[in-house]
Amino acid sequence: MFKGRGNVTRKDFRFFFPLRVRYSEIDGQGVVFNAHYLTYYDTSITEYFRWLGYDYAGEVKASGVDFHLAKSLVEYKAPILFDQEIEVGVRVGHIGNSSMRFDLAIFGRGEDKLHATGEIVYVYTDQTTHRAVRVSDRIREMIGALDPVG
Amino acid sequence: MFKGRGNVTRKDFRFFFPLRVRYSEIDGQGVVFNAHYLTYYDTSITEYFRWLGYDYAGEVKASGVDFHLAKSLVEYKAPILFDQEIEVGVRVGHIGNSSMRFDLAIFGRGEDKLHATGEIVYVYTDQTTHRAVRVSDRIREMIGALDPVG
Amino acid sequence: MFKGRGNVTRKDFRFFFPLRVRYSEIDGQGVVFNAHYLTYYDTSITEYFRWLGYDYAGEVKASGVDFHLAKSLVEYKAPILFDQEIEVGVRVGHIGNSSMRFDLAIFGRGEDKLHATGEIVYVYTDQTTHRAVRVSDRIREMIGALDPVG
Amino acid sequence: MFKGRGNVTRKDFRFFFPLRVRYSEIDGQGVVFNAHYLTYYDTSITEYFRWLGYDYAGEVKASGVDFHLAKSLVEYKAPILFDQEIEVGVRVGHIGNSSMRFDLAIFGRGEDKLHATGEIVYVYTDQTTHRAVRVSDRIREMIGALDPVG
Repeated sequence: MFKGRGNVTRKDFRFFFPLRVRYSEIDGQGVVFNAHYLTYYDTSITEYFRWLGYDYAGEVKASGVDFHLAKSLVEYKAPILFDQEIEVGVRVGHIGNSSMRFDLAIFGRGEDKLHATGEIVYVYTDQTTHRAVRVSDRIREMIGALDPVG
Repeated sequence: MFKGRGNVTRKDFRFFFPLRVRYSEIDGQGVVFNAHYLTYYDTSITEYFRWLGYDYAGEVKASGVDFHLAKSLVEYKAPILFDQEIEVGVRVGHIGNSSMRFDLAIFGRGEDKLHATGEIVYVYTDQTTHRAVRVSDRIREMIGALDPVG
Repeated sequence: MFKGRGNVTRKDFRFFFPLRVRYSEIDGQGVVFNAHYLTYYDTSITEYFRWLGYDYAGEVKASGVDFHLAKSLVEYKAPILFDQEIEVGVRVGHIGNSSMRFDLAIFGRGEDKLHATGEIVYVYTDQTTHRAVRVSDRIREMIGALDPVG
Repeated sequence: MFKGRGNVTRKDFRFFFPLRVRYSEIDGQGVVFNAHYLTYYDTSITEYFRWLGYDYAGEVKASGVDFHLAKSLVEYKAPILFDQEIEVGVRVGHIGNSSMRFDLAIFGRGEDKLHATGEIVYVYTDQTTHRAVRVSDRIREMIGALDPVG
C-alpha cells in the first residue's frame, strides 16, 4: 500500500467521507466491531465514485462489466468509539490491467489522528463470461482528471 | 399474538431453531443489540420452512409469487448475552387470505426462561402485478400437516 | 401509535434525521433488509436526543438510570432501495410513569412518500436495582420545550 | 500467510467451524457481503478457543490481559451464496513475542472448494497499561498440545 505506511497522513488524500459511529456498530468492549470497518470502506468507495462523477450502477448496466472484490485489508491503529465523528480518506493507489487498488485511512474528523489504514482490491469482470477484462478507459480518465494515481 | 402473552411457554411451539450469540451481535451494554433479534427471527423462519419441507426459493421461481414483509414486532423480556445458547420457537399463528403471521419466542437453550417474543407478518405478493394474492394451498397443507394453526 | 395510522404525514414530526442507504444494508431482493430499519430507528433516536440537547451518556453516568428497550415495531409500507436518500421522523408519542414511546416514520428525502412507520418503547431503569423508575423531570422538560407530546 | 497460498487445502487445518449463510448476510448481487467474512472469521476464532479448552473471558478477567485486533485480511476466491453450508478452517500460523496470527480459509461444507482465505493478527495487551505484553505460556501450551504451529 502506502510507501512508508507508518507515515500515512491526511495529505495522502484529496477525498474524505465523513461518518458518525452508530450504536449498532459498537461491540462489548465499547469500540467499533472490526467487520464494520469494511462497511465504512465500502460506503466510502461508493461516495468516492459519486465524487468522481462515475455512475457506477449505470455503467455496469450499460457495459455488462462489474467490479468484483478480490481482497480487503484493515490495519487497526487506534479504537473508534460510539458517536465518534470520523472521516475516511479514499484514493486509487494502483490501476493494473484488470484490477484497481483503493488505499483507505480513517482519521478523526478534522484531526490528524489515524485510526486505521486499509486496502480494497477490485477486479473488473465481464458479467457474462465471468472473466477479468481491462479496466475501462472512461474510469481511468475520470480518476486521472480528479485524483491522479502515484 | 398469543392469548395471555405473558404466559408464552415452550409448549406453544413444535419447532425450535438453536443459535449461539456471536460477538458481532453484542452492543456496548454487553447484550445482543435490538436489531439482531429480527435477524434471529428471519433466520429461524427460513429454518421453519426447511422443517416443513417447503422449498421457498423453488416455489417463488415456479409461481412468481413471493412473501413480502409487512410487519415485525419484538418484545424484549430479558437480555441475551455474548456466547449464550438460545433457541427460537416458531409457529404460524394465523393464515388469512393473502397474509401469514408467524409467532416467535426466544428461550434459553433447553430452558423455560423467556428472553423475547415477537410477530412477523408476510403478505403473499405476485411479483409481476405487485398485488397481494391468496396464500397457496400447497403451503397451507404443509403447515396443516406438521404444525396446524390454532 | 398514530391515530389513523394510515394517514401519517411529515406534519406529524418536527425532527427528521437524514440517511443514505448503504450497500451493506441491501438484501438479495435489492431492498433494505428488514432488521436494518431498527438500526435506522435507533440511530435516529440518538440524533433526536442530540437535537433536544439531552446528553444521554452523561445523564446515564450521573444518574445511574438508563433506558432499556421493551418493544420495537416496524410496519413496512414501500421498499427502500440502495443509495436512496431517506429521512426518519422521530417524536415522543407517549411518556408514562417509567416508560416512553417513540413514534417513527421513514420518508423519501424531502418527499411525502411513506416507506415505513414504527414504535420503540423504552423503560427507564435503575442500573443497580434493575427496577423501573420514574422518567426524570429533566428529560420531560426538554421534550416539553421542543417537541411537546400530544 | 500460507506458503504457496494458492495451494491452501483442507489438510492445512485440524479445526473447522460449520456455518450456514443467513439471508441477512446476502447483498444485492445475491452473495455474502464482504464485511460478513470478518464476522465468520471472528466467530470461528471464538470456537477455535473453545475447542482448545481456553476460557477466553475467564482468562481476560483473571490476567487483565486481552487480545487487541491489529490486522485483518480477506482474499475472496469464489462467491458464497444464500443458504450455502460452509466451514471455516482456523489455525494459529505464527506466535511472536506479543502477537498471534490466525490463518483462516472458507470451504464448502465437506468440499475441497476454496471460497476465501484470510489472516487475523492479535496483539496481547495489558488492559491497565495498554502495552503489548508477552503471549501467556498457558495459551502457547494449549495450542502446542492440540494444534502445533508450523
